Amino acid sequence: MQRVAVAGYGLTKFRKSNDSLYTIAAESMHDLFNNVKSLSQHDIDAVLVSTCDNAQYTASILSEMSGIRPKVAHRIENMCNSGTNAIISAYSYIASGLCDIAIVVGVEKADSPSAKLEWDLTRGSFKHPAHWAAMFSKAHMREYHTTEEQMALVSVKNHRNATMNPAAYFQKEVSVDDVLKSKPIVKPVKLYDCSAPCDGAASLLLVSEEKIYEFTKEPVWMTGIGQRSVCASFSNVKELTRMDSTILAARDAYAMAKIEPKMIDVAEVHDAFTICEILAYEDLGFVEKGRGGRFAESALENENGSVNVNTRGGLIGTGHPVGATGVAQAVEIAMQLQNRAGKRQVKNCKNGLVHNLSAAATSATVITMGV
Amino acid sequence: MQRVAVAGYGLTKFRKSNDSLYTIAAESMHDLFNNVKSLSQHDIDAVLVSTCDNAQYTASILSEMSGIRPKVAHRIENMCNSGTNAIISAYSYIASGLCDIAIVVGVEKADSPSAKLEWDLTRGSFKHPAHWAAMFSKAHMREYHTTEEQMALVSVKNHRNATMNPAAYFQKEVSVDDVLKSKPIVKPVKLYDCSAPCDGAASLLLVSEEKIYEFTKEPVWMTGIGQRSVCASFSNVKELTRMDSTILAARDAYAMAKIEPKMIDVAEVHDAFTICEILAYEDLGFVEKGRGGRFAESALENENGSVNVNTRGGLIGTGHPVGATGVAQAVEIAMQLQNRAGKRQVKNCKNGLVHNLSAAATSATVITMGV
Repeated sequence: MQRVAVAGYGLTKFRKSNDSLYTIAAESMHDLFNNVKSLSQHDIDAVLVSTCDNAQYTASILSEMSGIRPKVAHRIENMCNSGTNAIISAYSYIASGLCDIAIVVGVEKADSPSAKLEWDLTRGSFKHPAHWAAMFSKAHMREYHTTEEQMALVSVKNHRNATMNPAAYFQKEVSVDDVLKSKPIVKPVKLYDCSAPCDGAASLLLVSEEKIYEFTKEPVWMTGIGQRSVCASFSNVKELTRMDSTILAARDAYAMAKIEPKMIDVAEVHDAFTICEILAYEDLGFVEKGRGGRFAESALENENGSVNVNTRGGLIGTGHPVGATGVAQAVEIAMQLQNRAGKRQVKNCKNGLVHNLSAAATSATVITMGV
Repeated sequence: MQRVAVAGYGLTKFRKSNDSLYTIAAESMHDLFNNVKSLSQHDIDAVLVSTCDNAQYTASILSEMSGIRPKVAHRIENMCNSGTNAIISAYSYIASGLCDIAIVVGVEKADSPSAKLEWDLTRGSFKHPAHWAAMFSKAHMREYHTTEEQMALVSVKNHRNATMNPAAYFQKEVSVDDVLKSKPIVKPVKLYDCSAPCDGAASLLLVSEEKIYEFTKEPVWMTGIGQRSVCASFSNVKELTRMDSTILAARDAYAMAKIEPKMIDVAEVHDAFTICEILAYEDLGFVEKGRGGRFAESALENENGSVNVNTRGGLIGTGHPVGATGVAQAVEIAMQLQNRAGKRQVKNCKNGLVHNLSAAATSATVITMGV
């Protein structure tokens, strides 16, 4: 079977704008072509578009706009973890031998239909994701004495990291006090505990081992893949102090990559809310269950040993254009592993991880990448 | 690499109803479970949903409704050829070794947003697909002296075949005269030259070679795959007497399967309009370019030699629930190759073909299957 690696990437500034979905997506594809000088439109076998937008035939439209006549072109959606679903599809197309070169384009507008969990009627009017985040937060506080200050520290770190990421929507540091005093959303979740919808796109170029060196001297290998959808309804999430889909996805990804959590140097985790990052520390195996709050205290100054989390600013600092997020996370890990992350570069990183989830953590994806 | 085969399938009656998208989709999955007695929900690694519907998180919702906790779950859309895109993704997930067992669910409601080509602003108000069908028809009539009677014969055959398919929306034979006198839509396209949107779903179970015999003694192998998206806008379709995306997709599928068009015994081709079936005869290599009209004359009584086209009734006779169509086509070929097609069974068929296209033939998929 073909091994698969990232050969390059493109990003847009995350923002709020009047630009169309197509304009934003094409901007990230243009950036990718600028970054991978040897890439021609004729090389590309697949264009997979990750978005929750309702625009039909998006993959073929973006292909035409970019002068690409791909074999495979379609749109992929699974709410907030659409991006990593598209990446893993691209991996499969290449690993199976059907394609050699695939572009994954993640894109969303701030007013995406993914902002509410419209299907979960059992939840009454509580469709906004902040409601489930509040329940996860309360359960963790009750069970493990996690504090609102510890959750606030996640936001402080991620806002700080975002100031070192020119693509990030937010470019201002916040203090613990700022977070604690920010607008209450659903107790104990406050405004700065939340990621914000915005416009944005990210593109990733995946290539077979056979052709990778035509495009880069620094391939970033896809080493591990894990995915799991445990349910769709929040009513069926029985355990509020852990994310079962993440635990199962991480187990499979580590097994495929033959690595352990402690070998991860840099990770992008799905901090849709601050509590999600604390749960991710635990459920990805970076720390024991229940120690996520304390881990957040030391994460701010990276006193945790090897793993640096959400160097680009996470969803909280960078913004959360839903279909783009998983792809943008993978772009960050590729940049870090290629030592191209500028001011936020983590030294000597060899193994990276992407953690992307959907809809009250009912489904999750974990990808490990290595050099 | 793992070979991949169809192990089973499920269908709904194609209809117009007040049933929800989820109800219809789950009905076809239920039929699949009924047909494959040894299949348990726990076996399933992937649930891929093909639809143009805007419902978010559909794959995870259908998984929960069916008691499945898959690794891979997402929704796939590329207009009318969404179904075969989903099938080929499932193939890739299995062939790459990430999954062993995948369900593809194609589903649509009659009021799907795919009914118009909303993005193609260059075409002014001519967004209904009948406009491009009319241009293809006129070009073929002008260039090759194809007649309206020959096109009508496609509709006569497919309506007749549909009466032998209990799942088909239409259950009434029509004559050449009925077609010629049916309501004018866009000259020379008349009502009975067109397929009709309706509700419907189809499910397909794909399994790796390693596990296939746990589920069936009669695997139908996926032997050839070809896809191409040449553009998205009808304004960029330069040549109206052929479908370039189909020609390129067929070439790749035949090469992968190491077969020739004359070896195909049974084919489901994308007769969104009668002209599409005539073009498909030519572009799939069943007959020389320009001879499609005459082929239609002999196809009615299968005087063409080996290939039987649209035995289930095609899109014209069965109805066209957009996201379901490509999957339902593959179900028909699997049924034919397993000798389970009832009244419409083609004798001694060994090689079958699925031809699915989108949006003025700007993209197409060709899959060959064999026993």
